Amino acid sequence: MVKQDSKKILKDLGIRIVEQTKKGKNPEIKFPLRNLSNIVFDKKTKTLKLGDKTGTRSFFNVAHSKKFLQTIEIASIIKKELLDSGKHEHLRGVFYMAKRTIPGTNVNIVDEQTESDKSIEDLEVITGLSREQLHVSANKMGSIVGNIIIEDSGDVIDCSKLGRGGYSIPSITDELEFKKVNAKYILYMEKASTHERLVEDRFWEKNQCILLTSQGQTTRGIRRLLQRLAEEKDLPIYVLTDADSYGWYIYSVIKYGSISLSFASERLTIPGVKFLGITMDDIIKYDLKKHLIKLEDHDLSRLKQISDYEWFKGNKEWQRQFKMMKEFNGKVEIQALSSKGISFISEKYLVEKIRNKEFLD
Amino acid sequence: MVKQDSKKILKDLGIRIVEQTKKGKNPEIKFPLRNLSNIVFDKKTKTLKLGDKTGTRSFFNVAHSKKFLQTIEIASIIKKELLDSGKHEHLRGVFYMAKRTIPGTNVNIVDEQTESDKSIEDLEVITGLSREQLHVSANKMGSIVGNIIIEDSGDVIDCSKLGRGGYSIPSITDELEFKKVNAKYILYMEKASTHERLVEDRFWEKNQCILLTSQGQTTRGIRRLLQRLAEEKDLPIYVLTDADSYGWYIYSVIKYGSISLSFASERLTIPGVKFLGITMDDIIKYDLKKHLIKLEDHDLSRLKQISDYEWFKGNKEWQRQFKMMKEFNGKVEIQALSSKGISFISEKYLVEKIRNKEFLD
Repeated sequence: MVKQDSKKILKDLGIRIVEQTKKGKNPEIKFPLRNLSNIVFDKKTKTLKLGDKTGTRSFFNVAHSKKFLQTIEIASIIKKELLDSGKHEHLRGVFYMAKRTIPGTNVNIVDEQTESDKSIEDLEVITGLSREQLHVSANKMGSIVGNIIIEDSGDVIDCSKLGRGGYSIPSITDELEFKKVNAKYILYMEKASTHERLVEDRFWEKNQCILLTSQGQTTRGIRRLLQRLAEEKDLPIYVLTDADSYGWYIYSVIKYGSISLSFASERLTIPGVKFLGITMDDIIKYDLKKHLIKLEDHDLSRLKQISDYEWFKGNKEWQRQFKMMKEFNGKVEIQALSSKGISFISEKYLVEKIRNKEFLD
Repeated sequence: MVKQDSKKILKDLGIRIVEQTKKGKNPEIKFPLRNLSNIVFDKKTKTLKLGDKTGTRSFFNVAHSKKFLQTIEIASIIKKELLDSGKHEHLRGVFYMAKRTIPGTNVNIVDEQTESDKSIEDLEVITGLSREQLHVSANKMGSIVGNIIIEDSGDVIDCSKLGRGGYSIPSITDELEFKKVNAKYILYMEKASTHERLVEDRFWEKNQCILLTSQGQTTRGIRRLLQRLAEEKDLPIYVLTDADSYGWYIYSVIKYGSISLSFASERLTIPGVKFLGITMDDIIKYDLKKHLIKLEDHDLSRLKQISDYEWFKGNKEWQRQFKMMKEFNGKVEIQALSSKGISFISEKYLVEKIRNKEFLD
């Protein structure tokens, strides 16, 4: 079982430190570096990941000793308070658990959450376990509706029988079990309002699919859930966002990973995911020019940023999109489709695009 | 049925306008004013609401004509596209539906969402129907877990059998039916991480209650859901936030209403709701002083604002809290309870406070 492994791995880490200490050695931990110089785009797996550079952190080194202590303390909290009890704690909660004074001093083990967060990331790369396997959670976001039956903590949940609300996605999705999936694909959308439209129109039933929204940022939990569905159930995943550089960035992160989470790419990225819309071509095809919103400086700089990404550089189709956006000097929101009729999105736009396989890769 | 009424009320509004026009009169609509001078705190119902002042909007008045047109156009969209089809649309979608050029001109009916939003608010006060009854939705937020069975669009949903995720609350909660409720109270919390903690600890099962979180702002949908549970099921509602002026403001809005939504108070406020924590006394009692976070200017100005509220002015207990916060010059987050142990909140803090009825009113 995964939980047994996590405990054992942390215990072994502790044993190694104790052994080094007993031998009178300077206790040290070796791990892959997470700084920018060690983040590479792996052309084979097509994901951002860590390179081969490693670093060492040792206790008897003035520059390292506090971080060393923090990492070991966090490892101890995770092992004793979380894994042993089977409970999960939020990043903020772990910070408060670690924020205590070192006995005999007036120094706190951690003063800011960034310190405990960094230690948790360190532990991820040191142990090879994900934060979720370490039972540390973050944002809870999003909901799911459609032809999927999920087992969560012993409850069997049929996501086709949860009305308009759906199943509220927990922050950690690693422990969910997919009992039955009867879907041709998954439609992931950034906006909850689009999700509500498609759910009300029973799009998932008519088109035999699963509708998943994040209601904001694509959390790690949602990325992991999508990845697991893609891998374990061999389901295509289509991404639906606004036609703007932020929406396209969401797609980029899901597919290729992000710099800040490059160390966790293996458990988060989904190389096979496809972009369904909104594209700049859709703006012409579906007569949405009236609804173009002028680009602002932050849109343009985000656009420049993504068009320079290594993985988009050689991609003619995406470069065409970026160019068109600059020429139009505008972006379009997905809700603009409502101007064509309240259910235009579910009855025409999505059906046509999916039938004609009008995806961007 | 509610839907029938909504349609009839909008139809009658249209008929009145047509009749005025046919008689050669200047079509006009009368409605309660929503500006600050007409917002009063009703001491009897203890809620912020609109006063008696009314205004008139007429078509042949240069200052009114565009707004008049917008209101009628939005009414027409709501009647034809939403109520007649039984569908619901988001504020942003209604904006796009209304954003069309007036034939024979190059003028759009609306150019900005604020215009359609205002028209929808106008329609709420003109018709006495809530935005939700007009089938217009907004943010979807939050989840619910506990001893309640809800019917949503024909699906019967047992919120005690939805694992750790729970039922994802739809943006409009007016149409939910409560099939069975077996709870002594509802615990509403601002933070999803607190909700996940209590759900994992099966607090709802051990304490026979319902756990509801908004995962951020308390949306209209959540306020309405809480109000309906309070009124229809006669359930006490306890509010759990950080010990800070923003958390306390959340409580104030739920209980007394807000200026911006004062016109909708009747369907949103819950005079009987009680504040459970975190209080400044808890900081002492539960030894959380170490976790005080220094107040910043925005905390202090929000504190000043709420301490000047009419309903808090004569409230000795709350004034004591405000004073203590100023003396401590600090606030405390609910997650700070994790420093006492991961399940301190569910096994001790909440149990003790609820048993001893340590509420603020």
